[in-house]
Amino acid sequence: MRVSELGEFALIARLQEELGDQRQALAAQPAGSRLVLGIGDDAAVWTSGGPAQIATTDTLVEGIHFPRQDVRWQDLGWKSLVINVSDVAAMGGTPEYALITLALPDDFLVENVVELYRGMVVAGTEYGVVIAGGDVVRAPQAVITVALTGRAALADDGRPLLLTRSAARAGDAVAVTGYLGDSAGGLRLLLAGDTAVGAAQHLRQAHLRPRARVDVGRAAVEMGLRCAIDVSDGLAQDLGHVCQASGLGAVVRADALPVSVPLTQTFPDDALALAATGGEDYELVLVGPLQSLKQVRRRVDAPLTVIGEMAEDAERRVRFIDKAGRELTFARAGWDHFSAQANASVAPLGRTSRRRRGPR
Amino acid sequence: MRVSELGEFALIARLQEELGDQRQALAAQPAGSRLVLGIGDDAAVWTSGGPAQIATTDTLVEGIHFPRQDVRWQDLGWKSLVINVSDVAAMGGTPEYALITLALPDDFLVENVVELYRGMVVAGTEYGVVIAGGDVVRAPQAVITVALTGRAALADDGRPLLLTRSAARAGDAVAVTGYLGDSAGGLRLLLAGDTAVGAAQHLRQAHLRPRARVDVGRAAVEMGLRCAIDVSDGLAQDLGHVCQASGLGAVVRADALPVSVPLTQTFPDDALALAATGGEDYELVLVGPLQSLKQVRRRVDAPLTVIGEMAEDAERRVRFIDKAGRELTFARAGWDHFSAQANASVAPLGRTSRRRRGPR
Repeated sequence: MRVSELGEFALIARLQEELGDQRQALAAQPAGSRLVLGIGDDAAVWTSGGPAQIATTDTLVEGIHFPRQDVRWQDLGWKSLVINVSDVAAMGGTPEYALITLALPDDFLVENVVELYRGMVVAGTEYGVVIAGGDVVRAPQAVITVALTGRAALADDGRPLLLTRSAARAGDAVAVTGYLGDSAGGLRLLLAGDTAVGAAQHLRQAHLRPRARVDVGRAAVEMGLRCAIDVSDGLAQDLGHVCQASGLGAVVRADALPVSVPLTQTFPDDALALAATGGEDYELVLVGPLQSLKQVRRRVDAPLTVIGEMAEDAERRVRFIDKAGRELTFARAGWDHFSAQANASVAPLGRTSRRRRGPR
Repeated sequence: MRVSELGEFALIARLQEELGDQRQALAAQPAGSRLVLGIGDDAAVWTSGGPAQIATTDTLVEGIHFPRQDVRWQDLGWKSLVINVSDVAAMGGTPEYALITLALPDDFLVENVVELYRGMVVAGTEYGVVIAGGDVVRAPQAVITVALTGRAALADDGRPLLLTRSAARAGDAVAVTGYLGDSAGGLRLLLAGDTAVGAAQHLRQAHLRPRARVDVGRAAVEMGLRCAIDVSDGLAQDLGHVCQASGLGAVVRADALPVSVPLTQTFPDDALALAATGGEDYELVLVGPLQSLKQVRRRVDAPLTVIGEMAEDAERRVRFIDKAGRELTFARAGWDHFSAQANASVAPLGRTSRRRRGPR
């Protein structure tokens, strides 16, 4: 069977199965070393004789996640680091150290590598990430891999305080930071070659220079929240991961989704669909008691909008409802790397996820 | 300028320059977080509110580091993890946690991914490495990236004890574990389609299933040694990194190089050249006082052979000398990813480094 037939998530589940319980490797760890959280969340968490470490990795491939031509290398460098910072933020942690792997074609221009790196350094400065090392190899096309570690917040007894996907409870409110869909709208404009200023520029910028919500994640964990995910593959899909991991469903009030004025102006007909399914916003979805969410909102700079709640649902679905309580459906629910079937129906929204980007 | 014109090591130096001192990002680190060792050694080292962490990453690209067809996926999985374990061993540390990134073509077979992963799990079990997470993305060809963290040995005062490339002193002896050149010889046989048993099989196995010297690295650091590197790109090149970092030269007695019987039998004319320049043996080069090296030898299972010594040399060269004291030269001194000039003269030895492998 080809990986495209199995699909990304089934493949990961299959590999997880292959891992088994790793009992022997875990038993070989020195005292004070413990795997707190393995595959299946925004990041892995472990201890190694000290406070818990959060670790994540993300890869961008030329021709898949960024185009072959007309790349803004500094933006791409920024983004490749920030998407990892966002994963650490979604665990409630503080990012610290990065390893950068660059696989580059022979004819790749040195000035472009330097620009790429410069964007990483700028993002590192912004988020307090130290680039500590990495690897440079040759490859037929460029592949950028960032591995990032961070520190988990600690309870008084030294145990890590984390925001996981599995900690939602029925009745919890669901909130999201900032605005959704801007990045997907921006990508659509970039693919169309749009260079207008104003609203269009704002959307393009949202796609090219996303921001991570480290402060929100930290505030959330301090306010006692325990469940979050970042919006990388689209709200429907990412909230779906929370539902799967927590064994619950979610009901989202479509009219409550935070949609920006630039997105509404530029894509009046599609703004809602972009907000519900467009990826790469790197906003945080926080799930927890309404009271705690309100406390977080008072603590942080970012907008934080309550959009729905978690509910018992044996099918673990994310349902979007309109004001009249009718369920809405959208053309797609996010991106699966390998599922040909899912990807067949994506255009034009299919190219809005960080997981795929056509040449422009 | 293209990266192939600049060359791998000049490119890394250029990127290091671009990093600058990262003062702001370092200043943003929480208390107890400190970068101990950045770019330029076998691994990076940092603290994060606890004992020092060692971190490294290595990437294998289809068509560059492994062939497109006839891949022994389980062997490749083993190797992709072990080459990282070797970097942690070369720092004197104990490997702990790995993140695995798989970039895969759509038509990649699921059973091959599973075999690949199985090899990683077997290696993880062997070396006490827990696979904690990772990423799966789509790509035109397969790229396997492993990021590995480990724990540094600690002095009584809690400071990390490390084996770095820069700690050699003039007069230090140079020793190497095991045998050199077997992996390069094995690759040559694999490329020739050789399937003989006996000596040939031993060499092929050395290439397909290298081993990392974790116990030796740990013993070395405990015996007070402070300088080591692993043989990934060939002794001449890797010892050259020690010379560069330490500001010294090295003199290696060619007749002292540990060459295995299978290598001598199979390649009587080239065994010495393969030992001096062939990569991917993942043996450890230890540099330090002769007395300490002898103590290490008594402590470990592996053969440990003294092959030369460090000397003052403004040009920081690695010189191989014969019994009469005459200098020997070899066709190549290792692999540079991007240097077309260096790579022009490599065949047949050029394909012996882990950095490049032609289709077979």
